Amino acid sequence: MTMSLKGNAIIAQSGGPTAVINATAYGILTQLRQYDCVRTIYGASHGILGVLREELFDFSSESPQAIEALAWTPAAAIGSCRYKVRERDYNRILEVFAAHDIRYFFYIGGNDSADTALQVHQLARNRGYDLRVLGVMKTIDNDLMETDHCPGYGSAAKYVATAVREAGLDAEAMCTQHQVVLVETMGRNAGWLAAAAGLARTTDEEAPHLILFPERPFQLDRFLGDLEKELRRRHVVFVAVSEGLRTENGQYLSEMFAQLLRDSERPETQKDHFGHIQLGGAAAYLHYQIQQRLRIASTRVFTAGLYQGKADDPVRSRYNLPGTQQRNAAHWMSLTDRDEAMRCGQAAVVYAIEGQSGYTIGLKRISDDPYRAEPTLIELGKVANLTRRLPENFIDASGYFISDAFRRYARPLLQGRVEVPEDEYGLPRYARLEKRPIAKKLPPWQV
Amino acid sequence: MTMSLKGNAIIAQSGGPTAVINATAYGILTQLRQYDCVRTIYGASHGILGVLREELFDFSSESPQAIEALAWTPAAAIGSCRYKVRERDYNRILEVFAAHDIRYFFYIGGNDSADTALQVHQLARNRGYDLRVLGVMKTIDNDLMETDHCPGYGSAAKYVATAVREAGLDAEAMCTQHQVVLVETMGRNAGWLAAAAGLARTTDEEAPHLILFPERPFQLDRFLGDLEKELRRRHVVFVAVSEGLRTENGQYLSEMFAQLLRDSERPETQKDHFGHIQLGGAAAYLHYQIQQRLRIASTRVFTAGLYQGKADDPVRSRYNLPGTQQRNAAHWMSLTDRDEAMRCGQAAVVYAIEGQSGYTIGLKRISDDPYRAEPTLIELGKVANLTRRLPENFIDASGYFISDAFRRYARPLLQGRVEVPEDEYGLPRYARLEKRPIAKKLPPWQV
Repeated sequence: MTMSLKGNAIIAQSGGPTAVINATAYGILTQLRQYDCVRTIYGASHGILGVLREELFDFSSESPQAIEALAWTPAAAIGSCRYKVRERDYNRILEVFAAHDIRYFFYIGGNDSADTALQVHQLARNRGYDLRVLGVMKTIDNDLMETDHCPGYGSAAKYVATAVREAGLDAEAMCTQHQVVLVETMGRNAGWLAAAAGLARTTDEEAPHLILFPERPFQLDRFLGDLEKELRRRHVVFVAVSEGLRTENGQYLSEMFAQLLRDSERPETQKDHFGHIQLGGAAAYLHYQIQQRLRIASTRVFTAGLYQGKADDPVRSRYNLPGTQQRNAAHWMSLTDRDEAMRCGQAAVVYAIEGQSGYTIGLKRISDDPYRAEPTLIELGKVANLTRRLPENFIDASGYFISDAFRRYARPLLQGRVEVPEDEYGLPRYARLEKRPIAKKLPPWQV
Repeated sequence: MTMSLKGNAIIAQSGGPTAVINATAYGILTQLRQYDCVRTIYGASHGILGVLREELFDFSSESPQAIEALAWTPAAAIGSCRYKVRERDYNRILEVFAAHDIRYFFYIGGNDSADTALQVHQLARNRGYDLRVLGVMKTIDNDLMETDHCPGYGSAAKYVATAVREAGLDAEAMCTQHQVVLVETMGRNAGWLAAAAGLARTTDEEAPHLILFPERPFQLDRFLGDLEKELRRRHVVFVAVSEGLRTENGQYLSEMFAQLLRDSERPETQKDHFGHIQLGGAAAYLHYQIQQRLRIASTRVFTAGLYQGKADDPVRSRYNLPGTQQRNAAHWMSLTDRDEAMRCGQAAVVYAIEGQSGYTIGLKRISDDPYRAEPTLIELGKVANLTRRLPENFIDASGYFISDAFRRYARPLLQGRVEVPEDEYGLPRYARLEKRPIAKKLPPWQV
């Protein structure tokens, strides 16, 4: 049993927001408040950048109403960032920690922030600075190692599956026109959210009919051929496309779409500070190729002359790009996901108080039926910078759909609803923190 | 008092789906069942095309569960269409009606279907065929004449405003990177849904910061200049863009985007049977122009060298294209809208039984506070083929935001939630009609 470590705490958020990342912060905060050894609890505005810039705020200055509302507010109320910490930044981080007597650092994030947290943990240990560093997993992409699933995924999956079910009914309603309907899902290098789209379908007739997983290298001719076959079977073919789709050469479809634009003096695709390309464009690319290359004649589907269509007319196509909506639809979050996110935050605190450092909190599935999962301690080093792709047995033999094994895996994760309070317009009422900056103690950070 | 007219009824749906178009069908169906003079109640698969093709099904063959679920199922469960009825089709419509002793025809739709319903009504009258033709308004675009608002709008507005609020929090969470975030809203020629995005904002800091209404001709240089000014005030500028945005020459931005694509052998923009262009692309066009033309230097905003950004780097930008999701998000529909949709359906039946024909049902606002609106009879001829744009006083002086008058107008329409039953995955359980076709009595329709 470690002696209880006295001092202050920082909670920070990193990377792309989720519907439940604030629920994790809420779990950490409320749990921390139960320990006398923890004095002041700070938030670092915009993740590790907030630490580097010494932009901290004191949670005790926030209204109890705003704190409560963290439990159902999406995005990152503390502020997030995508900043790759440089070697020379780590000293500064420890200086800021020392200046404010920070002894507990909680970093809610994905595989990039796991790396940051690990470096901070190791440097503190090497310097003999007593610090407890705990990560808590969060990502809608569900692509972190060593965990059954990631807080944030269940809600994003619930939103994607619901949106696909609804858009599928829409497409079907209009099916006097044969067409292709595309929906682009998030998921940089892993098909977890594309797979979630598959949950929308309860019979073969329903959407989605094809799922394009980033785990499968994309080949345009083959896809168009298979799409043509589907178009002979049904008037509307609904396709879920992962934004992370790439050709066999490793080129993202979103980059290929950018190249289709004229004058592509267009700056190369936008990158973030980790060098990750900003995606979005895979569905647009396919939409364009369908227009260019598929003709009504080749699909041999019913047209009955109604649309004055000629055999060489293109097949109609349209696409939805829900984009950031996937990671923020807190109005429709999964109660299971929200509760797990909160419990992972609480567990991080319990472990930190017990003396653990250098770990992140993931989820271990205890049983499928009844479903039970528990927060679990995972070494940061086993998570940092790594990606867990969709296992092969979660994709069916055709390569275009999910397997029953994925259905069993995903089924518990989307369960339950959270009743978000309404404002005067009937819209969800979300938290907004004041984040009044505390006085700085150090000279400005030299970028 | 007209004698009660004995015979059968047809319910049909037309045009783009909404979250509540099936609630209207439910209202019509359940009300019709209360009158002995109404014998069999048919659905016409895919609107007037179902009539022309004699593709009818008998609602009494559907399960009571499926019928109940119409009250919360989005899209068009009976099937919709976009078919411009030709002169020579009208005879056929009356032949089908006579063959099946149809005396009541309910057509749920927008301004195109109001025209169809009007023609059917007039021809029946001229021929002395006793027929009651009633429309019921539906459109998420809210652009029909003579009504306070249209069933379908409240739910779409609720979804758009919620999605913008959530995406706005997302953008803010990531605001260490200055950027432009665009969301494209539906609304072909009228800015009602773009305006709904404005309801998301409760303080000047919040999203959306700019709304681009189709009521204002778009001028690229002016917009980019104004956007630059906004980018000097805040790191993230959130822009709601109507898909119907056009230049002063009347060209849709979505067409201009299509032209940016190389090899534009690309077939001209897709059109439906009414000659309406398929929109979608306004946000993509602006995203492209921002990348091409805005540079970090011109915005003079904070970069602090953090992103290794150079002054001539483009301003970051991204966009969401929720697309058909806007008209189908029944998981988040407005209870007010749903109930009004149902009541408009019921009212149509009451008027038809009373002997009215040649009308559609809209909504008349009785009072704002407490809010009260009632179904009201409107001549089809005053609705057919016309569009009601956003009134000038609903746009503020800057031209980039909504006025308080719009806020007062919209506030009651988004209120309340409908608890949609869940399936085993925690996803909404929606209705699916069997639509078993009844025996045809006529030779096939000659297209």
